Amino acid sequence: MLATVDQHDDTSPEIGGIAVDRLRSIIERVERLEEERKALSGDIKDIFAEAKSAGFDVRTIKQILKLRRLEPSAIEEQETLLDIYRRALGM
Amino acid sequence: MLATVDQHDDTSPEIGGIAVDRLRSIIERVERLEEERKALSGDIKDIFAEAKSAGFDVRTIKQILKLRRLEPSAIEEQETLLDIYRRALGM
Amino acid sequence: MLATVDQHDDTSPEIGGIAVDRLRSIIERVERLEEERKALSGDIKDIFAEAKSAGFDVRTIKQILKLRRLEPSAIEEQETLLDIYRRALGM
Amino acid sequence: MLATVDQHDDTSPEIGGIAVDRLRSIIERVERLEEERKALSGDIKDIFAEAKSAGFDVRTIKQILKLRRLEPSAIEEQETLLDIYRRALGM
Repeated sequence: MLATVDQHDDTSPEIGGIAVDRLRSIIERVERLEEERKALSGDIKDIFAEAKSAGFDVRTIKQILKLRRLEPSAIEEQETLLDIYRRALGM
Repeated sequence: MLATVDQHDDTSPEIGGIAVDRLRSIIERVERLEEERKALSGDIKDIFAEAKSAGFDVRTIKQILKLRRLEPSAIEEQETLLDIYRRALGM
Repeated sequence: MLATVDQHDDTSPEIGGIAVDRLRSIIERVERLEEERKALSGDIKDIFAEAKSAGFDVRTIKQILKLRRLEPSAIEEQETLLDIYRRALGM
Repeated sequence: MLATVDQHDDTSPEIGGIAVDRLRSIIERVERLEEERKALSGDIKDIFAEAKSAGFDVRTIKQILKLRRLEPSAIEEQETLLDIYRRALGM
């Protein structure tokens, strides 16, 4: 469970059997990437707000984004199935 | 619900009352940002994999990351409360 | 932050300023309800497994369930919008 | 992908190759269980509201609930590791 370092590697101090510099580097890199990811989420939110104030329906845009992740053949298959089930249920 | 454009703005065609270029721009920008965000999530996952193979405990690193988002005084207050509750319950 | 009890209420012992019986009751009731909820989630999963082995498409069933939570007028409005946006984008 | 029924089974009508009664039964059972599950979530929320108004700290109660799902030996191991990492990082 514990990451240890060679006792003679004096560039990387060790506390309680932990390679401190390595641990610190891991934590700081994750924090940096998480911050960038948070910023991107904020940017995406801003675009949806822009879309809304331009009169677009954000819910529909999100459905479009979902459809664009699928192959056209997969979209068609899903729509056919949904149609069959709806007719079967009288919806 | 529908975004309309000035009929005389011939740089932005309109289909079914929708400003097509504007809609396309919104969608493509969101897709680009979502891709970047997905890449960052992959990078974060890679760092945790690196941490694991270096012998660190990933669960504990995640707890450390969580604690680092809090003020030291908030950490202390939470730990004091948890301690009181645990003693009350004999845990 | 701390729940205290009247010092003379000898039916409810207090440790560290905490009304122990009350706290224990709260925790045990939540645990019981969480267990029931977990059992229900298991039952729902079982029905989807049954549907799958009877040859139904589970993804489509989930879409049906989602549609049934909406008013028919809301479904129609959403479908109209999605159709307009798809035509605008040539999808 | 389609659930079919024996054409001679006249108790279960079929539309578009779909065993309608079977599909309807599946959907209604899921809906019933989802409603029960939603009610339980409401009950749990009510208990937390009760806890809060009795002066307890809900966040701490949630941490207690989390700890109670673990074996005492797992709790101890996690706390030991967290302690080592925190000391290594000077937290």
